[in-house]
Amino acid sequence: MNEVELIQLILDRLGTAGRDARLKIGPGDDAAVVEWEAEQEMVVSTDVCLDGVHVPSDCPGDLVGYRSVAMSVSDVVAMGAVPQYLTIALTIEQADVEWIAAFADGVRDGCSEADTTVIGGNLAKGVKQITVTAIGSVPRGQAILRNTAQPKDDIWVTGKLGATSLALQAKTKWSPRGLSELKRLTSTDVIARYLLPPIRTRFVDCVRECASACTDISDGLAFELEQLVSGSTYGYNVETHEIPLWPGAELGDVLANDDCYEMLFTSSKDKREVVLNFAQSSGISVSRIGCIVSTDERTFTPDHDVISRSSGYSHF
Amino acid sequence: MNEVELIQLILDRLGTAGRDARLKIGPGDDAAVVEWEAEQEMVVSTDVCLDGVHVPSDCPGDLVGYRSVAMSVSDVVAMGAVPQYLTIALTIEQADVEWIAAFADGVRDGCSEADTTVIGGNLAKGVKQITVTAIGSVPRGQAILRNTAQPKDDIWVTGKLGATSLALQAKTKWSPRGLSELKRLTSTDVIARYLLPPIRTRFVDCVRECASACTDISDGLAFELEQLVSGSTYGYNVETHEIPLWPGAELGDVLANDDCYEMLFTSSKDKREVVLNFAQSSGISVSRIGCIVSTDERTFTPDHDVISRSSGYSHF
Repeated sequence: MNEVELIQLILDRLGTAGRDARLKIGPGDDAAVVEWEAEQEMVVSTDVCLDGVHVPSDCPGDLVGYRSVAMSVSDVVAMGAVPQYLTIALTIEQADVEWIAAFADGVRDGCSEADTTVIGGNLAKGVKQITVTAIGSVPRGQAILRNTAQPKDDIWVTGKLGATSLALQAKTKWSPRGLSELKRLTSTDVIARYLLPPIRTRFVDCVRECASACTDISDGLAFELEQLVSGSTYGYNVETHEIPLWPGAELGDVLANDDCYEMLFTSSKDKREVVLNFAQSSGISVSRIGCIVSTDERTFTPDHDVISRSSGYSHF
Repeated sequence: MNEVELIQLILDRLGTAGRDARLKIGPGDDAAVVEWEAEQEMVVSTDVCLDGVHVPSDCPGDLVGYRSVAMSVSDVVAMGAVPQYLTIALTIEQADVEWIAAFADGVRDGCSEADTTVIGGNLAKGVKQITVTAIGSVPRGQAILRNTAQPKDDIWVTGKLGATSLALQAKTKWSPRGLSELKRLTSTDVIARYLLPPIRTRFVDCVRECASACTDISDGLAFELEQLVSGSTYGYNVETHEIPLWPGAELGDVLANDDCYEMLFTSSKDKREVVLNFAQSSGISVSRIGCIVSTDERTFTPDHDVISRSSGYSHF
């Protein structure tokens, strides 16, 4: 297949994930044209998914597609914004029709979960790499920053942490399982959870209504906790036994390098009930793992000697 | 330098090209937040600039940065939209500080020319590749498509065509010249023009006011002419001696594979004066190279035997 045929294949596979009533001009022209609501600010994030870094190099296309979408949408949700549109650039060494078709299937599933539409993209020959730009909307002035936590605020996380390192350790035992099977296992299987990160679109309302600060966890919990107090004179205390770990996960790994794409947020104590109600109604579990303190101390209790390797992942 | 330091270096170099009064939340958070005007539709395009394909593999960073911006902005302008915001994802093998700093300089210059702002991006280790997502605005319902040309419409192009193949042929004679020197030479030197494609932001008003169809030339003139009548029963007649060629450029090359990023558009005959006035006031030359015909014939006069290799560039 040539480039034009491959793009048509992708569009066919995307189905409704490539169509939207607000999409005025879709693929095939120089650029896409979409409607934008008045009084909504635009939230934009670009993420690169590298073969062999963000996904295993032998990973089936559908899993790569889904994970690429999840990685990118996660940043938009962490701003309290509703993901609306995506563009996806794929470079790949060969016109591997089967892989590309599966990739499009995974993107479609991710878009369906995130309630987003692919409005454009690019296909070129090169080392396998996916770049997703996610565009979301938030009412004017209501975006949630990552470093605006206040003293005494509760610190919350969604879901369970630590699937990444467990999955990477278990890699030799990976069995080739399809997207649909893995999707049913994300709450019980670390490999499924790692490959198919949570897409927390249904949690956006909670972030916007309750969070004083929010970020997604993509670089280890310690690095992300730092973000909450970055630029302020505040610190935090985390109760380590409250951190919702996957069975077998090590706290040190979770602090150092978990990229679970769960939400880490702070919220005023008087919003506890509201957060818990949102969790119940959305079916997304939340755990209160500590609080922001007015001094610049960072403490972990009772494990005072947890070494906080907080530098996060650096590509260089 | 590590990733965080490199990103700071890029932001420092971008200067005002990374700041904008409408940018509510810039780099450093999960995503950027920007204002959006009511009644404006959003135009989005993503382009990948591959090392060794879209730019020579030994190309200095500033030229790659500028060209990446120009390639992407071009698609937005071709919709009659005003470029507003960019995100830029760079993958590079090593933390080559000098190259990355120069790249940021080139992006800044391209943004200045295009009057756009970088609002986000991504930096990762990998094979050198740049992915630019350009976001523009157009008044509701006024985007210009590429295939809505009408019979008897004039066919116009901006600038001169054919620099690409001349520059690639001359490659052995390339001398290392800086961005600022090359920028002064884009109207006289094919290498300067190839490396620093035109950014036609100042021509947007003409496209929106006069064009019945418009596309940028990124895949050879023949392929782009096809776009003007794609899906219709119309054809075109092109007067080959009216095509504005660089001295020495061969018509066959220009038809087959020119990626000059000039605008190719159609316009009603009664708008001729208006187009010429826009050209004069913007300082952007235009040439009327033919017209749309009501039959599906594609003719080139007087060179009837021009072989139209109209397939365009396929990566696969």
